[in-house]
Amino acid sequence: MQSPWPEAGTPLDQVATPMPVIDEDRLAANIARAQAYIDQHGKAFRPHIKTHKIVAVAKAQQEAGAVGINCQKISEATVFADAGFTDILITYNILGAAKLARLRALHERVPHLSVVADSAVTVDGLAGAFDAARPLTVLVECDTGGKRCGVQTPEAAAQLAERIAAAPALNFGGILTYPAPGGAEAVEAFITGTMALLAARGIDCPVRSSGGSPDLYKAHLVPSATEHRAGTYVYNDRSMVRAGECSRDDLAMHVLATVVSRPAEGRAVLDAGSKALTSDLLGFSDFGEIEGFEGARIVSLSEEHAVVDIAACRDTFPPVGGLVKIVPNHTCVVSNLFDRMVFHRDGIVTRVEDVAARGTVW
Amino acid sequence: MQSPWPEAGTPLDQVATPMPVIDEDRLAANIARAQAYIDQHGKAFRPHIKTHKIVAVAKAQQEAGAVGINCQKISEATVFADAGFTDILITYNILGAAKLARLRALHERVPHLSVVADSAVTVDGLAGAFDAARPLTVLVECDTGGKRCGVQTPEAAAQLAERIAAAPALNFGGILTYPAPGGAEAVEAFITGTMALLAARGIDCPVRSSGGSPDLYKAHLVPSATEHRAGTYVYNDRSMVRAGECSRDDLAMHVLATVVSRPAEGRAVLDAGSKALTSDLLGFSDFGEIEGFEGARIVSLSEEHAVVDIAACRDTFPPVGGLVKIVPNHTCVVSNLFDRMVFHRDGIVTRVEDVAARGTVW
Repeated sequence: MQSPWPEAGTPLDQVATPMPVIDEDRLAANIARAQAYIDQHGKAFRPHIKTHKIVAVAKAQQEAGAVGINCQKISEATVFADAGFTDILITYNILGAAKLARLRALHERVPHLSVVADSAVTVDGLAGAFDAARPLTVLVECDTGGKRCGVQTPEAAAQLAERIAAAPALNFGGILTYPAPGGAEAVEAFITGTMALLAARGIDCPVRSSGGSPDLYKAHLVPSATEHRAGTYVYNDRSMVRAGECSRDDLAMHVLATVVSRPAEGRAVLDAGSKALTSDLLGFSDFGEIEGFEGARIVSLSEEHAVVDIAACRDTFPPVGGLVKIVPNHTCVVSNLFDRMVFHRDGIVTRVEDVAARGTVW
Repeated sequence: MQSPWPEAGTPLDQVATPMPVIDEDRLAANIARAQAYIDQHGKAFRPHIKTHKIVAVAKAQQEAGAVGINCQKISEATVFADAGFTDILITYNILGAAKLARLRALHERVPHLSVVADSAVTVDGLAGAFDAARPLTVLVECDTGGKRCGVQTPEAAAQLAERIAAAPALNFGGILTYPAPGGAEAVEAFITGTMALLAARGIDCPVRSSGGSPDLYKAHLVPSATEHRAGTYVYNDRSMVRAGECSRDDLAMHVLATVVSRPAEGRAVLDAGSKALTSDLLGFSDFGEIEGFEGARIVSLSEEHAVVDIAACRDTFPPVGGLVKIVPNHTCVVSNLFDRMVFHRDGIVTRVEDVAARGTVW
């Protein structure tokens, strides 16, 4: 049975739908632009590979000058360790004997592996799984307004750092945060406050890692951060355009879809449902943007259908069998739905890559 | 590197998280209950395999008495054809040369293959891809209030049925709808209206297919329907409990998760994010239900984190490292995130099955 994945050289309008496709030139420009900006401000750039989960894209980010990569889970990091990446930061609390054993095995073969922790329980678990012969580097995760994980105050950060530093099996690597959008001031204050407390305790704080694509081009507003982590910027999406982080010309991912029905006045149905776009709204009231048809709104998603209100453009919207290009609200989660990813230039497929870390949630 | 998939015999509390797990006994009971009800009302039952996408589960549904299976896309159907299923209904408008060629190839090897159509464009495309030597069976999809695909009136249904019947390469199989929840009257009226018009034109309407899990146990309210299709009932989820379609004891899927942080008063973070649960709200205001902790609310999801408001149960909620069981808002989309599915009985893993049709959206 014919594979859905197109051969190189296939025109985009012959690619099976629904299909996310990546513009090679926009991807390369996004990689270069972010690296240049971070270089200009004297920081290290550490891309979060979750947005693409593709070895070749991470290699391109590395070749552009990334200091290493950011992964979210051990299983995700394992894929990239298998591909030879030597500097991996896992921004997650690793807990439980099985996961600690997997982390230990990873640490044997990744020259520069770091993790984060935001509690004594997590730190003690890590300390028990490693040894002084080759300590594990641990950063303290700080909540600087994101209200997710992280210690709540510089005092708590310094305390946890001391606990890490006191463990022979661990090495205190620094502090890290995933900020609230627009939270540069809070990040800077937290970092400087924590560093002062650490200095008073005689503890170095070599890495101060901030992150997020919404604030990628505001990273210079956190002068005390030594590195910036970002994932979404590599493809961009509707939420990044709204955030002002990129222009529409920087949108590298589109989801191609076919109009499968025009069943009633003002309604069209596409073959891209939540299993191609996800239901991520990210603050939007509709499920994606159909390029070139302003006023068309994806008002509901089933698993395999998008219902589009085309009242504002019924005369121009494509007929049954026609093709559309959707800008997803959120690109990272689209990558995680597909086993492979199609790349293109000038309307022609260039390559298809394995989304090697698809589904790696453990 | 250790696989995340547990061996049979593993206790559930040692399964890597986040992980959806299926209770064998509840699954078997759901399959039996639905089949018995439909049998009792003299209809055919056609499970939609999208909810599990697993060959062994479809076989169990078949063994219980299902007349065949329902798939949403050709690629999904192909997986089940490869596994030997002989009666497959694809409830989708199939368009374009490539998809028609794939449908043709499928038709060569599936003894009873049917599709739907809701437009002349779709019907004509199908007619051009098949031939009179072995016609393709096509049902007319009708919009009976679901406001997705489907012809809008019995008159339009009869007209499209005539077009199908007039094509030597096609066989008119009947009519089909995916109703609005609670829409039994509208379905019955549409069916009887269409059948009367078809009878007047001398056209048989052998299959009248209705569907949906929310109305599975109201299928008898559509006496003119010959078959009922349903997917979600096999596992059930939070939306099915809310619909009154099942009790909490019929919930076969839970997503196991670990508490990875208790960073602030009233907040906990789990390792199950949108990449384990999806962001599907289905009308709920939170992202899933944590069993046994009434008042705990999953207020936000990142890709790999769930932020839980535990203000109402902070003294009983598990500490960092503790395990919880989440009832997903929507089970079907969780299946589509995982390559394999873990089954259990009495707290012990029984088997792990391939989610063979994961990601088959074309």
